[in-house]
Amino acid sequence: MTHAAFAALHRPGDPLVLPNVWDFASAAALVGAGFTVLGTTSLGVAAAHGPPDGQGLGRTETLDLARRLQPLPALLTVDIEAGFSDDPAQVAELVVGLVGAGVVGVNLEDGRADGTLSPVDFQVDKIRAIKARVPAVFVNARTDTHWLAGAAAPQLSETVGRLEAYRAAGADAVFVPGLADDDDIRTVIRTVDAPLNVLFIPGWHTVAQLADLGVARISCGSLLFRAAIQAAVDAAKSVLNGQSLPAVPSYADVNALASAGDPAGPLHHLLGG
Amino acid sequence: MTHAAFAALHRPGDPLVLPNVWDFASAAALVGAGFTVLGTTSLGVAAAHGPPDGQGLGRTETLDLARRLQPLPALLTVDIEAGFSDDPAQVAELVVGLVGAGVVGVNLEDGRADGTLSPVDFQVDKIRAIKARVPAVFVNARTDTHWLAGAAAPQLSETVGRLEAYRAAGADAVFVPGLADDDDIRTVIRTVDAPLNVLFIPGWHTVAQLADLGVARISCGSLLFRAAIQAAVDAAKSVLNGQSLPAVPSYADVNALASAGDPAGPLHHLLGG
Repeated sequence: MTHAAFAALHRPGDPLVLPNVWDFASAAALVGAGFTVLGTTSLGVAAAHGPPDGQGLGRTETLDLARRLQPLPALLTVDIEAGFSDDPAQVAELVVGLVGAGVVGVNLEDGRADGTLSPVDFQVDKIRAIKARVPAVFVNARTDTHWLAGAAAPQLSETVGRLEAYRAAGADAVFVPGLADDDDIRTVIRTVDAPLNVLFIPGWHTVAQLADLGVARISCGSLLFRAAIQAAVDAAKSVLNGQSLPAVPSYADVNALASAGDPAGPLHHLLGG
Repeated sequence: MTHAAFAALHRPGDPLVLPNVWDFASAAALVGAGFTVLGTTSLGVAAAHGPPDGQGLGRTETLDLARRLQPLPALLTVDIEAGFSDDPAQVAELVVGLVGAGVVGVNLEDGRADGTLSPVDFQVDKIRAIKARVPAVFVNARTDTHWLAGAAAPQLSETVGRLEAYRAAGADAVFVPGLADDDDIRTVIRTVDAPLNVLFIPGWHTVAQLADLGVARISCGSLLFRAAIQAAVDAAKSVLNGQSLPAVPSYADVNALASAGDPAGPLHHLLGG
């Protein structure tokens, strides 16, 4: 059966808010601040590593990150993009490796690098292959009808049709990044019999508003990563220009995090967990 | 001869301000914001990767990071801690590898994991080995007299003695993290015939004040990394608590950075470079 503790956190009206991490430090700091469930951001992981220098690197980096995060006392769900393969058996094999590293869930998306959506049957085959091989893993099936560039006027009927097919194939939850209209969110929740995950969009809905709409899970996506990068650049410019800097954890606190990743350690206090 | 363009940036009274990076994203974002010289932070690199899982990992990660940053149009100097070896030949071999990846300088420190300082001769042998093997590399010799835990009342004579020995062994500049007293800074600059590098300490000196003292180089150390981690945690808590978030670069902008690292790209504008 699907990992019960993780599945139980997907409550319509009382959503799981998922911070997304990209390396050990971001994960350990969030655990230190009190977060006990983490996702990964494929954008952050890719950007932290730089331009890909070979085929299959995303797959390798994704597995490597999961293994590095394994010591942390948190439930981890991993963004595997489209599975880094067109072969459902290969995608399932990746999930076997991730679950072996302690991962409880994966996000699988139907958007492709060329900006188009995978055929529904293609995506259904991947979901079926994963659930057949690793029934316990929580599959969050993502459709990119509202996310891909050029999808200026996405058809909600296409979204719903895809989500229903993914759910029937065994998906445990469904994810529509970019779905932001209240009526559209209500329609998907009413029509598709699965917990709905949406992406948090700063300045749009609050968590409380999304809860009221019936959302079951809210992802931060690349937001924390982007905030981190901006803060680094801002700090460098503040040093250069003689401006004041925001409060940051001490060297000793981050050193403790680097060497131990202990959520009961000093970062817990310092980062306000 | 030592890399001339990099050496020329070490001007007493008009110091090189060095932001320190830990992954491709932090480096590319800083280049995008207009910084053309970067250092690395060994703390940030270690924390990003998590607890070491084997001997020699620091060495591998340091080389790997240098290779990933090579495509960026910036001069890069790398923190190699104590060289990841007690064998001067092995330390020199690491520097050969780094220079092969386009690195122009290294930081070599005399602090040890047990909180003590290496014997001076031991450190001198490493500097000599590096400069004999790779004369072009800019060696920034760091003494941890003012940095190590327990060094509550460091003796400036010890600091000066070490720096003079390192300079005589071929060091191109000297670095005393934690050196913060105005008179001490002046004494080191007056006594040791080498450009002085100090660590930027928020709320203590400004860059302008350190310039007035005659400092030639200012490192941010782990400051930017710590600001980034804090910003990620703050953003997650703001999402959870319905608070407003700071402005961050867009997904598309960071995606462009991840795939290209182009300093003339959208990040340049967005991050205010």
